[in-house]
Amino acid sequence: MDYLPPARAIMLTGFMGTGKSTNGRRLARRLGLDFLDTDDLVEEAAGKTIRAIFEEEGEQAFRDLETEALGRSLAGPRSVIATGGGIMLRAENVAMMKAGGPVICLQASPKTILSRTSCRDTRPLLQGEDPLGTIKTLMDERRDAYGLADYAVSADNADRGTVLERMCEHLAGDPRTAVLVEASQRVMVRAGSAQYRIHIQRGAFHALDRLCPARSKEARCLIVTTKPIAELYADLVTASLAAGGWDPDVIALADGEATKTLDGAAALYDRLIDRRVDSAGMVFALGGGVVGDLAGFVAATYRRGIAFAQLPTSLLAQVDASSGGKVAVNHPRGKNLIGTFHQPAGVVIDTATLDTLPERELRSGLAEIIKHAAIADADMFGFLESELEAFLALDEVAVRYILARNCQIKARFVEQDPWDRGQRAVLNYGHTIGHAVERCAGEWDLRHGEAVAIGMVAEARLAHKIGICDELTVARQLAIIEKAGLPTTAPPIDMTEAAESLMLDKKISGGRLRLPLVPAIGQVKVLTDIEPDALREALMYVAHE
Amino acid sequence: MDYLPPARAIMLTGFMGTGKSTNGRRLARRLGLDFLDTDDLVEEAAGKTIRAIFEEEGEQAFRDLETEALGRSLAGPRSVIATGGGIMLRAENVAMMKAGGPVICLQASPKTILSRTSCRDTRPLLQGEDPLGTIKTLMDERRDAYGLADYAVSADNADRGTVLERMCEHLAGDPRTAVLVEASQRVMVRAGSAQYRIHIQRGAFHALDRLCPARSKEARCLIVTTKPIAELYADLVTASLAAGGWDPDVIALADGEATKTLDGAAALYDRLIDRRVDSAGMVFALGGGVVGDLAGFVAATYRRGIAFAQLPTSLLAQVDASSGGKVAVNHPRGKNLIGTFHQPAGVVIDTATLDTLPERELRSGLAEIIKHAAIADADMFGFLESELEAFLALDEVAVRYILARNCQIKARFVEQDPWDRGQRAVLNYGHTIGHAVERCAGEWDLRHGEAVAIGMVAEARLAHKIGICDELTVARQLAIIEKAGLPTTAPPIDMTEAAESLMLDKKISGGRLRLPLVPAIGQVKVLTDIEPDALREALMYVAHE
Repeated sequence: MDYLPPARAIMLTGFMGTGKSTNGRRLARRLGLDFLDTDDLVEEAAGKTIRAIFEEEGEQAFRDLETEALGRSLAGPRSVIATGGGIMLRAENVAMMKAGGPVICLQASPKTILSRTSCRDTRPLLQGEDPLGTIKTLMDERRDAYGLADYAVSADNADRGTVLERMCEHLAGDPRTAVLVEASQRVMVRAGSAQYRIHIQRGAFHALDRLCPARSKEARCLIVTTKPIAELYADLVTASLAAGGWDPDVIALADGEATKTLDGAAALYDRLIDRRVDSAGMVFALGGGVVGDLAGFVAATYRRGIAFAQLPTSLLAQVDASSGGKVAVNHPRGKNLIGTFHQPAGVVIDTATLDTLPERELRSGLAEIIKHAAIADADMFGFLESELEAFLALDEVAVRYILARNCQIKARFVEQDPWDRGQRAVLNYGHTIGHAVERCAGEWDLRHGEAVAIGMVAEARLAHKIGICDELTVARQLAIIEKAGLPTTAPPIDMTEAAESLMLDKKISGGRLRLPLVPAIGQVKVLTDIEPDALREALMYVAHE
Repeated sequence: MDYLPPARAIMLTGFMGTGKSTNGRRLARRLGLDFLDTDDLVEEAAGKTIRAIFEEEGEQAFRDLETEALGRSLAGPRSVIATGGGIMLRAENVAMMKAGGPVICLQASPKTILSRTSCRDTRPLLQGEDPLGTIKTLMDERRDAYGLADYAVSADNADRGTVLERMCEHLAGDPRTAVLVEASQRVMVRAGSAQYRIHIQRGAFHALDRLCPARSKEARCLIVTTKPIAELYADLVTASLAAGGWDPDVIALADGEATKTLDGAAALYDRLIDRRVDSAGMVFALGGGVVGDLAGFVAATYRRGIAFAQLPTSLLAQVDASSGGKVAVNHPRGKNLIGTFHQPAGVVIDTATLDTLPERELRSGLAEIIKHAAIADADMFGFLESELEAFLALDEVAVRYILARNCQIKARFVEQDPWDRGQRAVLNYGHTIGHAVERCAGEWDLRHGEAVAIGMVAEARLAHKIGICDELTVARQLAIIEKAGLPTTAPPIDMTEAAESLMLDKKISGGRLRLPLVPAIGQVKVLTDIEPDALREALMYVAHE
């Protein structure tokens, strides 16, 4: 898979009036890139308008400034750059542009261009007697130059969506930009009659006014979060929601599973009633899986269900728990025993939250990502093999690509099985043995993702042992888990106890164990005839060395 | 509307082998009537088989016994009677039959009859050399007699369902039996993707093994009920479910709203976990609305939702709360604030439970029935006007007719608006003012139904005052409410406080009051522009005299 380094920039050129700035801005927003306009940079650098530069210093001076601006743009962060219409007349510019990334030329007929430019007097080249003639002459002069662009897209009478989609189609097929496009996809989840979007964007929490606007006046909402997350994001999220017409209140719980109980839910009901949140109100779950489960359960059961949105801040919640609609609280005698299904109205992932996530949490979240790739997405597995460092370094494109692919995989399983009646069971890969290890971890501080990693190693080896996969499939999983800095063996726990816990598992004792295994990277197969002895043996594969 | 006295009996006649007994039994079960067979009664009375009577005493003796048996059958409870094939040869029998109710003649071809009778030697008339010839001769002889039946139904090569449906079609169009058929309808509710049946039957709790069988081995269920109801029905329901393959447990709560809280729900979760009820388990709500709401809420939220069935024992729960899927517990600061939607897997109404219902509860339940009739069913309103005494005397047909029609009305509203997003609001007729009175009733022991009756009187008068209905529409509602023994004025409560409570109603203070009123019996119209003053005045219409 071609990935890094993707294009530094996507450049838009074309005649004046073809909509380079407008469409460039849209493309940048879609791809989550910065947007630059060489005309703006030129005016900024010169301290005067382009018209003034032309009038006072001549076209040559403008072209020099333009070349300089292009160079600066390409040296900055990855971006979409709208250029002046004559930029490709200079060979030096063309060389820089071709090295920087794909160039898209927007095209329109002379008449369209005239109609779009006739009201303005800021275009120095069209100030003569016969503007249509001038346009035609200029277009002829530039035809060869525009022919150097990689892609031509018609902006004639096309609606804005069409131009954007056509540009994205070209870019999705271009190895320099395929990952950029993929990473920008908004993921739709359809679960039963519910349908919602997962937004993945750096800075998305700044845009909640646009992403989750209030739908009525005096709309009250409750932001449920934890104290550590509140310190980082509560002010931002509150302000962003207030800008969207909400009257937000924040409840910051203690960190950890202890609040995810019926009593914890009761405290939230009290708060919702205190604040007179009615059925037009909403709950925002800002935090990890615990917050999402608890806040979602309360939203599901307050006034027979009010809307809620997930604002997941941990990698694990972003790629897994935030979509799918499973909400619950714990009972003293079992996790998630009290719960229901309540699909969120939306999921907003601000990738900037990963900047503040402790590295161990980041690596732990990677376990579920590796699991998704192993059972359902060989491409993503390959991407992880080559680009894991970029992801761990929080390269924005790598992060968004991984999140988008993961959310797509999760969405697909949720759509096939919205009420978790069977098919979603494949998502339990690595979890059967992982849970047994986790339950016996005791004082050994083990994250859920770490236990899943250990479980995957054991279950991959089991799959090879019983002959359903080859050695390479096991080796690739082991290698990526190691590369992610995740454990491949259990801590020095009592393995006899873990084996007992494994056998006591309801699913096994009932004789109905459904064990998902990976026959080849990107594929999954649910086995129903695994012998308890084989399972116990698999546990020993990951015994502490 | 033609109603009482409906036919004493529905009689089936026709040649031997046309399936009179089999189809008669099916018809009786469908209509909830007793089933009798004159041949059985004759054998019982004579103490010997029909063949023996024919051989030892001759056909004449048999015919005398048969006439006697027919007379006895028609004097007993309402029933379906299968008769001997020759019964209509006697004018005396025909006269009795025509006076008793509709006669259906089942018909089949001689060949069909031969094939159905040839293996038996219990038919004394077909013991000769040429049975087919005998059949044809006998059929010719009886043609005129069978022509006296009201309806002819072909039983030739028809499947059993078809014969039953054809008989019911005839009976539904016959004024002597229309109510019997109507009362026997099983009501289907479709709510979103859920679909379930409301069974209405005397003795239905004895048939839970058939109506709610366990679907897997070791199926555990919890019967949630109250102590008073448990004394009456817990043993019966437990035994009936056990016969259906369930391993039932009973939890009997204190009577009243006090248990319908989050703590009450927690106690049920504990019990379900204690009993290791898993996702194949089920909750049965045996009791009134409080039990249904609480048990339904717990079923909705235990292990992300398990199945539950409503076994409502109060009239109010039977006609209203048991279908529709609204489940909830109370919060100290408001009823039903914690709740969700969870459609039952089925509703089983045993009309025998009304025998033990205190008369005041019966009358209170009538208020919602009158409300349903007023807003949606002019026919049922007319039925109530003429047959209220029969209903209060628990005449089985009147009871089942009323329950079936009510459940149909409720089902229709639920189907149109499964998540209660607007259209179900018409069910609040009588409730706006009724609730205000109920909230201020204090020490005055007022049932919910009584408050609704008072509310309907006030709102009917309001409708007339503002010119949307005529005086007769008000008078008919007032008359039926009085006839039901329900109050038409409030107890001597503080009406100023009630008016304040009315104005504080969230729906009114938010300026969005949607008030359903009745422009004509059987119709409803939601008004959104009612002046607060008009509403306050309406409250005064029902002030204590």
